[in-house]
Amino acid sequence: MTHEHEHILADGTVIKHSHTHTQTKAVLNRMSRIIGHMQAVKQMIKDGRDCSEVLIQLSAVDAAIRSVSRVILKDHMEHCIVDAIKTGDEESLENLNKAIDQIFK
Amino acid sequence: MTHEHEHILADGTVIKHSHTHTQTKAVLNRMSRIIGHMQAVKQMIKDGRDCSEVLIQLSAVDAAIRSVSRVILKDHMEHCIVDAIKTGDEESLENLNKAIDQIFK
Repeated sequence: MTHEHEHILADGTVIKHSHTHTQTKAVLNRMSRIIGHMQAVKQMIKDGRDCSEVLIQLSAVDAAIRSVSRVILKDHMEHCIVDAIKTGDEESLENLNKAIDQIFK
Repeated sequence: MTHEHEHILADGTVIKHSHTHTQTKAVLNRMSRIIGHMQAVKQMIKDGRDCSEVLIQLSAVDAAIRSVSRVILKDHMEHCIVDAIKTGDEESLENLNKAIDQIFK
């Protein structure tokens, strides 16, 4: 997937850049699998399945979400952030810092 | 929601007990909201939205899953486990221990 970004620097210069995420398809597949997993866990709860089993499945979903976040973050580092540094796009770097604060709080 | 359980002790005695989860409806509502949230995040990725925003939303989903796990665990402690201790149902206690190992690994 290719993104087109336009950034306006403090001095008014407009910088356009585009970058490609190589992992988007893999990330979307992982997201679909996680959603399917969550729907299955919801059904387990409806069916009155043992709480211990439900908790184990939820911890697997949790691990899968952290794993897909890692893939997105690495893809972002390899593409967007490398571009952002080259083009002096400080907004992207600040946004990533905010996201990292949120993730590891 | 009421569960009927049958446990066979080592000496062959059959113990039947039932217990009620008071939080099942709330848990199912939370599960539906988390699934909806995940579908929205998947759409954000499809739309090529900023990775930082996607990561922040995934960390919110992650927090919501840990939160619903906590509700399930507390409900389980208050109902199933109290019953399990009263009826000497060691299998339930062992299963919960396994689940806790999995969750906090």
